[in-house]
Amino acid sequence: MGGLRGKVAVVGVGMIRFGELFDKSFTDQMQEAYLNCINSVDKGFETKMLDAAWFGQWSGGILGQGAQAGSPLASGIGNMHIPITRVENGCASGQDAVRNAAIGVASGLYDVVLALGCEKMRDKPSVESLIGVGGGGGGILGYHPSWMLGMGGPSMQALYATRQMYEHGVTQEDFSRVAVKNHYNGARCPYAHFQKEITLERAKAAPPVCWPLNLMDCCPQTDGAAAVILCKAEIAKNFTDKPVYVWGSHLGIDHANYWDKKQFVSILSTVRAAKGVFEMAGITPQDLDFAEVHDCFTNIELMHYQDMGFCEMGKGHLLLREGYWNMDGTLPVNPSGGLKAHGHPIAATGVGQICEAFWQLREEAGARQVKLNKGLGLTHNSGGPGFGTAGMHILSREL
Amino acid sequence: MGGLRGKVAVVGVGMIRFGELFDKSFTDQMQEAYLNCINSVDKGFETKMLDAAWFGQWSGGILGQGAQAGSPLASGIGNMHIPITRVENGCASGQDAVRNAAIGVASGLYDVVLALGCEKMRDKPSVESLIGVGGGGGGILGYHPSWMLGMGGPSMQALYATRQMYEHGVTQEDFSRVAVKNHYNGARCPYAHFQKEITLERAKAAPPVCWPLNLMDCCPQTDGAAAVILCKAEIAKNFTDKPVYVWGSHLGIDHANYWDKKQFVSILSTVRAAKGVFEMAGITPQDLDFAEVHDCFTNIELMHYQDMGFCEMGKGHLLLREGYWNMDGTLPVNPSGGLKAHGHPIAATGVGQICEAFWQLREEAGARQVKLNKGLGLTHNSGGPGFGTAGMHILSREL
Repeated sequence: MGGLRGKVAVVGVGMIRFGELFDKSFTDQMQEAYLNCINSVDKGFETKMLDAAWFGQWSGGILGQGAQAGSPLASGIGNMHIPITRVENGCASGQDAVRNAAIGVASGLYDVVLALGCEKMRDKPSVESLIGVGGGGGGILGYHPSWMLGMGGPSMQALYATRQMYEHGVTQEDFSRVAVKNHYNGARCPYAHFQKEITLERAKAAPPVCWPLNLMDCCPQTDGAAAVILCKAEIAKNFTDKPVYVWGSHLGIDHANYWDKKQFVSILSTVRAAKGVFEMAGITPQDLDFAEVHDCFTNIELMHYQDMGFCEMGKGHLLLREGYWNMDGTLPVNPSGGLKAHGHPIAATGVGQICEAFWQLREEAGARQVKLNKGLGLTHNSGGPGFGTAGMHILSREL
Repeated sequence: MGGLRGKVAVVGVGMIRFGELFDKSFTDQMQEAYLNCINSVDKGFETKMLDAAWFGQWSGGILGQGAQAGSPLASGIGNMHIPITRVENGCASGQDAVRNAAIGVASGLYDVVLALGCEKMRDKPSVESLIGVGGGGGGILGYHPSWMLGMGGPSMQALYATRQMYEHGVTQEDFSRVAVKNHYNGARCPYAHFQKEITLERAKAAPPVCWPLNLMDCCPQTDGAAAVILCKAEIAKNFTDKPVYVWGSHLGIDHANYWDKKQFVSILSTVRAAKGVFEMAGITPQDLDFAEVHDCFTNIELMHYQDMGFCEMGKGHLLLREGYWNMDGTLPVNPSGGLKAHGHPIAATGVGQICEAFWQLREEAGARQVKLNKGLGLTHNSGGPGFGTAGMHILSREL
């Protein structure tokens, strides 16, 4: 397997404020994120400079919004003259759109490319949504086997949460602490869905959704869009004096169905993505200044610390109690607020994490800026049926 | 825009016989196509040789089969240790999966990759299927704007067919002639859904579906799967003494909605894909020995001759009458039987066309073998909402 170091740069990023965007159409969201993205390019950017695009889009088919393909993005950016691939890989759709865009640049076929993720999650009522406790055959996930057996998002995640409590001594209070940390960060991010701190008492007292998880353990259903422009590293300075470089990009896979899983304290797609991305970048977790990590439910963030090698198995919640993952801790996790506070418009989430990493590495993150040491950040999403996919990137301020 | 010549080879292909495969699961179909594919590699192949895969899959969300992502393919091929991207680009999903796989090889990240397309189209009744005349809000395409206005596949295609008749003097008999040609070819292909010749009289007398199109102008709803293995050109001879090389790979885009179209005698996504793919390959249509062309409805094959530069605008049906596109004609089109006779399991169709091109270029196509001159073949699908996407490849027996 070859690498990406020295080949691919990020030169512009943009997103819209995530939230319940009933006043914006799908196309509106794409346009606004795209315009923010091209307007962010320091030395200017025009749509005709694009050679190709990758479109992260998950909800189209599932939510009954019809087939998507690449063409809706063409309308969103007003360009019918480039190839546009729609990528769908569950909650890793955004990371994988960026990954395929980076591969496109590395291939030599395209010099300048776009990755954009967009979702309208709120156009379906919550009872039919991912957060629906039961789900079942009538839910939005239709005939997916897990959902047919009555497994919605929270009930599937509870299988892990209870096992984390049993095997590692994690408590419900630890889950709440993740929410408190991520809301603290999200309150400092102008693009976050929830820009509001919460107390530990408030988090612990939230109504139960599926034991041991309560409402404050669940990320919201969120509309959103985010976009990034990547180019060949050697032309990056044509666009900005401060490009950010892609050192690693990898996708991990695991079984799609829960009945194939052998344990419930680890997400194997994340383990595999992490192994690949650190190898590709040639760094270790200890080199990172921050990480944006998938926290669709608070308990999964604790597993991901361990699965990505940030700490020993079973120790994530102990370090959490010490403030290790806080914005001013040893390894800040989710300075953007994470899925919990920033929101989770599936494919837009991963592209948005790349935006956040770009801002952090350029020290443009304002009140949520982390302290940089080596100038390296990580982004991560896991998802799909049975958390069968996980996408990761390692970004650097150095070539 | 860079090129692919000299970089990427196809070293193995496999498909299953397309048809109504109620006796095979989705996973069964993938496994059988994949095993046929790896068993086709002359010097042997093992799954552990794969570095990455791209999964063409359209129907998952739309047909209520749930989210797909990359992980179902991992189960199909028994490999949890490589990145797998799901690509969805309407009826061009298969071509685009192969395109992204070729880009992956060209990037230097991966030496050996898989592209596989699989669909279960028959698990929904015809009345809710693509061929449903009305479609509407209750059909499988859910809330897609075109379908909400009562536009199913045949009724959308009739907009073009009537305009072809008006502007170019095409007749309903010409549409029938396309069906007769493609059934003749399909009768000679062991993987085709319909392996049966039809007479012009029979085709003309078929019951109407949506005037001017009758049942014999419509491709069937078909289950199927197809797979191809691509690798770096310089290691191709490790796998076979007769590799086939990818000279061009491109995707064209157009508006997704019919109300944005300015004319109905040309598919602009195909025009753009053709321009890009011929430029990339550095050849002209006159260099081709054969082409596999998207014929979901017979009339669209006539437009595609013209849109790809095979002949002048408005002349495709005149050349058809002379036998120009026949298997023994000047430029054989759809030796496999095309979508009309071979069937159209969306993403499997495009990957299957690459299989057919591989066999033709290696002169292994048996009773449907075309005569080779320069050893160059083309594959093509258009689709998505409003034929907003078109994927194309140019393959060569020479490096």
